[in-house]
Amino acid sequence: MLHLQPLTQPPADTMEIFDKQYHAPGTPPGTLAEPPPATAPATLRLVEFSETEYTEREVVELAECAACLKGDTVSWLHIQGRAQTDMLRELGALLGLHPLALEDVVNIGQRPKFEEYEDQLFVVLSQPIFREGLATTEQVSLFLGEGYVVSFHHGADDPFAPVRRRLQNHTIRGRGADYVFYTLLDMVVDQGFPVLEGLSERLEAMETELLERLDTSTRQILQGIHEVKRELLLLRRVLWPQRDLLSQLSRETVPLIGAEVRPYLRDCHDHATQIVDLVETYREMSTTMLEVYLTGVSNRLNESMRFLTIIATLFIPLTFIVGVYGMNFGGASDSPWAMPELKWHYGYPLVWLAMIAVAIAMLLFFRRRRWL
Amino acid sequence: MLHLQPLTQPPADTMEIFDKQYHAPGTPPGTLAEPPPATAPATLRLVEFSETEYTEREVVELAECAACLKGDTVSWLHIQGRAQTDMLRELGALLGLHPLALEDVVNIGQRPKFEEYEDQLFVVLSQPIFREGLATTEQVSLFLGEGYVVSFHHGADDPFAPVRRRLQNHTIRGRGADYVFYTLLDMVVDQGFPVLEGLSERLEAMETELLERLDTSTRQILQGIHEVKRELLLLRRVLWPQRDLLSQLSRETVPLIGAEVRPYLRDCHDHATQIVDLVETYREMSTTMLEVYLTGVSNRLNESMRFLTIIATLFIPLTFIVGVYGMNFGGASDSPWAMPELKWHYGYPLVWLAMIAVAIAMLLFFRRRRWL
Amino acid sequence: MLHLQPLTQPPADTMEIFDKQYHAPGTPPGTLAEPPPATAPATLRLVEFSETEYTEREVVELAECAACLKGDTVSWLHIQGRAQTDMLRELGALLGLHPLALEDVVNIGQRPKFEEYEDQLFVVLSQPIFREGLATTEQVSLFLGEGYVVSFHHGADDPFAPVRRRLQNHTIRGRGADYVFYTLLDMVVDQGFPVLEGLSERLEAMETELLERLDTSTRQILQGIHEVKRELLLLRRVLWPQRDLLSQLSRETVPLIGAEVRPYLRDCHDHATQIVDLVETYREMSTTMLEVYLTGVSNRLNESMRFLTIIATLFIPLTFIVGVYGMNFGGASDSPWAMPELKWHYGYPLVWLAMIAVAIAMLLFFRRRRWL
Amino acid sequence: MLHLQPLTQPPADTMEIFDKQYHAPGTPPGTLAEPPPATAPATLRLVEFSETEYTEREVVELAECAACLKGDTVSWLHIQGRAQTDMLRELGALLGLHPLALEDVVNIGQRPKFEEYEDQLFVVLSQPIFREGLATTEQVSLFLGEGYVVSFHHGADDPFAPVRRRLQNHTIRGRGADYVFYTLLDMVVDQGFPVLEGLSERLEAMETELLERLDTSTRQILQGIHEVKRELLLLRRVLWPQRDLLSQLSRETVPLIGAEVRPYLRDCHDHATQIVDLVETYREMSTTMLEVYLTGVSNRLNESMRFLTIIATLFIPLTFIVGVYGMNFGGASDSPWAMPELKWHYGYPLVWLAMIAVAIAMLLFFRRRRWL
Amino acid sequence: MLHLQPLTQPPADTMEIFDKQYHAPGTPPGTLAEPPPATAPATLRLVEFSETEYTEREVVELAECAACLKGDTVSWLHIQGRAQTDMLRELGALLGLHPLALEDVVNIGQRPKFEEYEDQLFVVLSQPIFREGLATTEQVSLFLGEGYVVSFHHGADDPFAPVRRRLQNHTIRGRGADYVFYTLLDMVVDQGFPVLEGLSERLEAMETELLERLDTSTRQILQGIHEVKRELLLLRRVLWPQRDLLSQLSRETVPLIGAEVRPYLRDCHDHATQIVDLVETYREMSTTMLEVYLTGVSNRLNESMRFLTIIATLFIPLTFIVGVYGMNFGGASDSPWAMPELKWHYGYPLVWLAMIAVAIAMLLFFRRRRWL
Repeated sequence: MLHLQPLTQPPADTMEIFDKQYHAPGTPPGTLAEPPPATAPATLRLVEFSETEYTEREVVELAECAACLKGDTVSWLHIQGRAQTDMLRELGALLGLHPLALEDVVNIGQRPKFEEYEDQLFVVLSQPIFREGLATTEQVSLFLGEGYVVSFHHGADDPFAPVRRRLQNHTIRGRGADYVFYTLLDMVVDQGFPVLEGLSERLEAMETELLERLDTSTRQILQGIHEVKRELLLLRRVLWPQRDLLSQLSRETVPLIGAEVRPYLRDCHDHATQIVDLVETYREMSTTMLEVYLTGVSNRLNESMRFLTIIATLFIPLTFIVGVYGMNFGGASDSPWAMPELKWHYGYPLVWLAMIAVAIAMLLFFRRRRWL
Repeated sequence: MLHLQPLTQPPADTMEIFDKQYHAPGTPPGTLAEPPPATAPATLRLVEFSETEYTEREVVELAECAACLKGDTVSWLHIQGRAQTDMLRELGALLGLHPLALEDVVNIGQRPKFEEYEDQLFVVLSQPIFREGLATTEQVSLFLGEGYVVSFHHGADDPFAPVRRRLQNHTIRGRGADYVFYTLLDMVVDQGFPVLEGLSERLEAMETELLERLDTSTRQILQGIHEVKRELLLLRRVLWPQRDLLSQLSRETVPLIGAEVRPYLRDCHDHATQIVDLVETYREMSTTMLEVYLTGVSNRLNESMRFLTIIATLFIPLTFIVGVYGMNFGGASDSPWAMPELKWHYGYPLVWLAMIAVAIAMLLFFRRRRWL
Repeated sequence: MLHLQPLTQPPADTMEIFDKQYHAPGTPPGTLAEPPPATAPATLRLVEFSETEYTEREVVELAECAACLKGDTVSWLHIQGRAQTDMLRELGALLGLHPLALEDVVNIGQRPKFEEYEDQLFVVLSQPIFREGLATTEQVSLFLGEGYVVSFHHGADDPFAPVRRRLQNHTIRGRGADYVFYTLLDMVVDQGFPVLEGLSERLEAMETELLERLDTSTRQILQGIHEVKRELLLLRRVLWPQRDLLSQLSRETVPLIGAEVRPYLRDCHDHATQIVDLVETYREMSTTMLEVYLTGVSNRLNESMRFLTIIATLFIPLTFIVGVYGMNFGGASDSPWAMPELKWHYGYPLVWLAMIAVAIAMLLFFRRRRWL
Repeated sequence: MLHLQPLTQPPADTMEIFDKQYHAPGTPPGTLAEPPPATAPATLRLVEFSETEYTEREVVELAECAACLKGDTVSWLHIQGRAQTDMLRELGALLGLHPLALEDVVNIGQRPKFEEYEDQLFVVLSQPIFREGLATTEQVSLFLGEGYVVSFHHGADDPFAPVRRRLQNHTIRGRGADYVFYTLLDMVVDQGFPVLEGLSERLEAMETELLERLDTSTRQILQGIHEVKRELLLLRRVLWPQRDLLSQLSRETVPLIGAEVRPYLRDCHDHATQIVDLVETYREMSTTMLEVYLTGVSNRLNESMRFLTIIATLFIPLTFIVGVYGMNFGGASDSPWAMPELKWHYGYPLVWLAMIAVAIAMLLFFRRRRWL
Repeated sequence: MLHLQPLTQPPADTMEIFDKQYHAPGTPPGTLAEPPPATAPATLRLVEFSETEYTEREVVELAECAACLKGDTVSWLHIQGRAQTDMLRELGALLGLHPLALEDVVNIGQRPKFEEYEDQLFVVLSQPIFREGLATTEQVSLFLGEGYVVSFHHGADDPFAPVRRRLQNHTIRGRGADYVFYTLLDMVVDQGFPVLEGLSERLEAMETELLERLDTSTRQILQGIHEVKRELLLLRRVLWPQRDLLSQLSRETVPLIGAEVRPYLRDCHDHATQIVDLVETYREMSTTMLEVYLTGVSNRLNESMRFLTIIATLFIPLTFIVGVYGMNFGGASDSPWAMPELKWHYGYPLVWLAMIAVAIAMLLFFRRRRWL
């Protein structure tokens, strides 16, 4: 039986191609959407440090942080999960955050961007991540103010634990809020490397299979290439503006970011550029692979066709010849014109000879055309 | 019967690809075309507000608005539907509008653009909308002057009702005309989100069907992809310049727009950019889907071909063999060369054995080539 | 008979793809080529006007214009048709025109460009036009000086009659030479709208036919698409630089062009941009249509193939079976092995049953693979 | 016999795709490669002129030129062919040429560029030329200094003879070295027009043949398109930077080039731009032609296929029917079930009627599907 | 037998498409990874020179260099192979190198870039190289400081031996550290020429084979084209930023680089641009070749198809005719309707005449369609 059973399993849980949350047009700007009721409340983790001290605690009421965020030490408030509207409004009032920025924090699916307000720098980033085996992104929002950083991450897992560990271990504690801000940027950007490494492995596996078995490559590979292209397309949509954002941040003179942090931001921009380069390179590769796949399909068609042509053109004339001597003229009439060949002494072997001659002529013709 | 009936229904009411209204070349600039006589007259709705008051009324004679537009309060005149030439001329004289701008209001199908005149800012926008299930756009024209906004919308439905509700509810009443202007811009731009969400749903539905039923996807999908591509192409033609327009507006220092409205315009530009990104992403997706469709067609051809090749090459040699023993040499001559096989005791079973051997050899050959 | 007769009529009178007139390399710059002797002499039409007066007359000798071009009134000299070298040289001497500019006037097929000389502004434009049903362009050259405009048009028909009518009707008479200059620019640019509308109609007609009759679309459509693509390609080559030229003209401060004419040039630039957008959109559309055409061809191939496969695989095994019982073993030998089936009482009906069973099995197989 | 003989003649003498001469990496910059010993020595031709005088002579020893190049008159030294290293070094010392520039003169295959040294302007150009029927380029190098021009051309034929004729005929003698420099630039650039005209003729000839004989176009056309694409690709690689070079030269203020020569350089830049436009247009055309060719191939496949399908599906069932009545059940058994049709009075005509009915049904089916 | 055996050898040792070494996200910036224990230790070679002296020695302890690097002479330290972390840290402390720069030295697979620190210029380059017959790149890192250059190369072979030879031979000894720095840049960039020449040879060999044997080109060529495309894609990813880097270096005023070295850097930038041009040209060529390959495949399919169609449609009707006269109506019944043709005197020759007539008609039809 042929192997080509219909593909019964649809591509299960692909990334949404429309991942933007937006208000109905006409809603006042700065409106904050309430999270769905079933959502687990966000957890707040406050880190406060100076060169000599380090405290970290989970916060329940935002009021606990007020003194700290306004104080002399450097403080970093991380909000993990979907924040409640009330809490956001309270935070906005406390630190003087712009309502449009808070709206962008809540309406995930934003394009990476940075906005400079009077007292804060606001940055929206896209952190690449593998979810259920598919490359996708999660939104991270950061506020940098005088002496504080506020970070938001909507996913289930807190990606910033290593940064807290480094603060605890004193490595970067002497630095200011701008360095913490850079560290968080850097973490988000660098998540692109393992994600792209994963994609490159899928691409290379498919390429090897494609070239090794050019004539039998199944449509599973076609679907695989299509999926990788799709993931790259969606990654690219957020990673390009992320690169531009970092380019701007590292070139412009933002008062909240010290001169000694600038080279680090340039390094971060460099990583973002490398990631974009990889995404573009992989996109071209997947396009080339699709072409190779299609060529493989054409090649196979060609082969079947040639094989059929050879067999058919070899036997069709022979079948005609044997058909001729299957006609019943001989038996029914005594006319000397009635298939005298049938009565020849060597009639039968002569027919065989004729057929063999025809077959050899055909084969020679095929060979001359290099079909054999 | 084969499923492939000819497509009897032509694509019904697609968007016009030439949607520009223009005067015959050589017509003086600023000429205002009269609307066709059957057109319902435009309705004028005047909103006047200050921080404490709010009045809204439908206006029949433009003269009613004169005092109000020139007065101290902020006033917003919305003209819904196709405006009469006389009324436009009167309005132009009242507010000192440039004749070229008025011409652009009337000749719909303009490219989004903004023009700064001495006393006014003139903006032409394209509002994305679904009409009869197809994504298209409608022209919105806005004038911003000292203390007034004049807006024009040519469609049947007034999209700006929510803005009036917000003004009534005091939400934004303290702001000036520039904020009302921004609010209208924002409404028009944000209409892109539901339209693109609709397109993304069509794309995803087609993609799922395409990948699930790669071998049987009908040409309805081809037509569907073609339609989405076409709609995206036409949307893109107006959304790109709309994005550029907002970028300019949010960067340049326009005296009529206050500094505190600038961040809102940047937010609006950001939305326009996201919309353009989505349009581009969906265009690439539909291109990829076309490729997958074509590959599916090739695959099916390949399969039919292989199946035919297998059946034909299996039976053609066998049919030749049985043809040989259908020749009438045996009956007509007594020559010992005249098909002696026919007279052999085991002639018939031997022929069957020979045929089975040929068939098995063929099947083995097919298996070695992985055609089975 | 098959419908597909060979295309006997070649594409008749397509636009030349190399339409540039050039001197042999090494010819001194500013050399003016003499028109071919058979060319009808150019006609000169001089318009002279002030706010109160308007005179228009045909000029035979250039000397007649000298006083007028140098005088206080605004004068506009239009030269229709191929100008004689002597006349051009005389004109050049009279107004101090740069020899390179005059060379560009004569060597038609120039790229749209503008050049600012000391006393003049020189502009070369491409006017889109339908000639024998094909979209092409004609060169228009304009000189703007202090108080005069000189225009050249090489075609047979004078496109500027409407402008003269407007001058006569006093509409624009109060303006200066710069406004006349703008009016001519605007006329040339706006000729693009009817030409593109014509192309859009051809495109839409082909698209409708393509989608309605996907399975029978003939190669006339292929040729039609190819022709539209070709015309768009050639239009695009001249319309892009024309847009850039107008962008520069409307942005740069050219002393000869007054500030109040600037908004009109911006409007003209806007039209040129719309025209370029349309050209690009139509090019993408024709590319998409070519893909759809090719997909239609593939689909049809697929269908023929499937039909052939079904018929052939249905009957080839049956033909083999009847071939078996056409063998002559039965009659020639008395061996019990010699086709005993032939002597069975129900042999013949049994063979029919077997054949029907094989046919049903095949049909079920086809249905399972969704080929039916 | 089929027409499609294998292509025996390989594409003879195509342009090298790697045409750059380079030193082994690590060679000191400014190293001058010795020409191969068999090369004919370069010929030096010195032109010296002022408004009143003109002398031209062939030079054997470079020392002869020293006085002249340093003198008050304008002098132009043209070196035709591959220059000896010693002579170049001597020239470099005499005029103070930068060793890197001399290296670029010798290592032909340079990218067009210009370099401004302290006392000279150095320009490398690519002159388009037809060599053995193929469009290619030759390197021309120019030095412009105070009162002198030095030009190098590596080919066999001196392209600058017309310039010398014009100098002799007094046409441009009053101008300085910068004008001579421009004249040489202009000659080199304008060689692009005849070359592109030649390519356009080949393209148009192929297009006509392609559209006239869509069904029989041979692969000679495929090879022709491929060759034109290849030549255009290689031309484009050098003509783009040449255009940029001229754009820079005509915009920047180079002290060695007088203001009155600037418009001429702009004209030259304009020609270079037109040439680049033509190259791009022809590249798109050749791409479109390849698509049309491929579509023609698909169309022909389709037709063969349809024809085969019609013939095969018409006769396969009929052949089955006649096969049925070729079975030998009737003769061997007396059973009333043994093919009673054979004994019917009208058996034979009935079979014919059945076959005609089947054939008509098939033909109607084909017509309904518009295959006929 | 058919030639098309399945491709048994997979593409052996292709370049990794993900070649970036990176730390786990969250690692502190400036972390230096230890080389794998089995790695051979890096060798340090110190060159110290002034106009009169030259010493070169292998260094074991970094401390040996301290005096020299800080001294008055120009010194160049080259580190070949993977450097130990301790040594790097020591070097960093000695010269005040930025930790981010040192991290980039260790984490190979960096994008070419340059970074200007307070006292140093840091450059990362990609040196093209052939490894096992495949074009790939190796990272070279350079520090330029006041009076010293430090270079790192990770490969097995030291590419800078020629530079040392030139220093020894006095050629460039009078120059400063900036010239040495340029010399190293130049060496790295110029390695692109032999690599691209190699690729061009592979491309030309494939093109010749493709065009000569359009009908029999095997899939080895397909794989060859795919490999070249892939290598070019990966080369391009690093050569583009390398070109930009050199463009910046040659334009910006970097205090560490003297004005007299600037023209050399421009020359180096020019080479980098030529290399990028070649890469782009070759990419387009390989794309065109893929199209030609595909067209060849289509052509061959077409030919097989046509051949099959001709043979099949010629013999299928004839086989039907002979099948008719193989029916057994004649023998079994005495009805005058029972195949009277069989009893005609000239029945058999008449059938032959009919068959010959059908065959000639078919052949004429084929000729009219130009299939023969």
